[in-house]
Amino acid sequence: MDVALDAARAAGERGEVPVGAVLVDPDGKIIAVDGNRTVETSDPSAHAEMLVIRQACRQAGSERLAGHDLYVTLEPCPMCAAVISNARMRRLYFGALDLKSGGIETGPRIFTHPTCHHAPEVYGGIGEVEAADLLKSFFAARR
Amino acid sequence: MDVALDAARAAGERGEVPVGAVLVDPDGKIIAVDGNRTVETSDPSAHAEMLVIRQACRQAGSERLAGHDLYVTLEPCPMCAAVISNARMRRLYFGALDLKSGGIETGPRIFTHPTCHHAPEVYGGIGEVEAADLLKSFFAARR
Repeated sequence: MDVALDAARAAGERGEVPVGAVLVDPDGKIIAVDGNRTVETSDPSAHAEMLVIRQACRQAGSERLAGHDLYVTLEPCPMCAAVISNARMRRLYFGALDLKSGGIETGPRIFTHPTCHHAPEVYGGIGEVEAADLLKSFFAARR
Repeated sequence: MDVALDAARAAGERGEVPVGAVLVDPDGKIIAVDGNRTVETSDPSAHAEMLVIRQACRQAGSERLAGHDLYVTLEPCPMCAAVISNARMRRLYFGALDLKSGGIETGPRIFTHPTCHHAPEVYGGIGEVEAADLLKSFFAARR
């Protein structure tokens, strides 16, 4: 999660919402790290989670990442929750809850529906104070 | 929707789930057409809707497509529903309902939650018989 927090910080320095994600293979090796890039790439889907999943799938030559784990500094939104499910990821570790736009423990709770074909194990609140502080400082500085 | 159905057919011929999407600008001009490419690109996010939204945003140099409309042959999944919302699209026209994996009128009903910050106008059932037939033939041929 420290690596994800560094990626979040770097995203904030680029003027992006400071969220970072790290993707770990079944051997525990980090295979992708990124932060939000929606502004830079003019892509509303370029959240940190989406970017590391797309990168890891491209590297693996597969749409699925069974046995892989994702660390992200903020509760994923519904879009990212759904792609985590599509990619059949094993575990999701996230930092701060996102009461405004989250999709796991708030809002549409993507993994709870019978039409969700795969749900990862979910561990929230990992490094949440630091992750939330990053977001608070970012938005405070913009006001 | 005829153009979207052609894109769905082309996707099926490539071995992809036959779903097609068309993105129309505020003047009614088609600016992006694509079908599913998850297999071809090893990308679990490469649904037809996601691809045309990414392409149109890239062309526009913006994460948002206010005033733009999307035509898709199948009810979007939760991931695509969320990116449609993120992109602030005006209208969504879709063909067949997706009782198995949909995210608009089935499953997590993405646009109904208070944490959904923008919901397009939604018109379902446009060309649904043809869209559903395409999917049925595709899956029947694979069994």
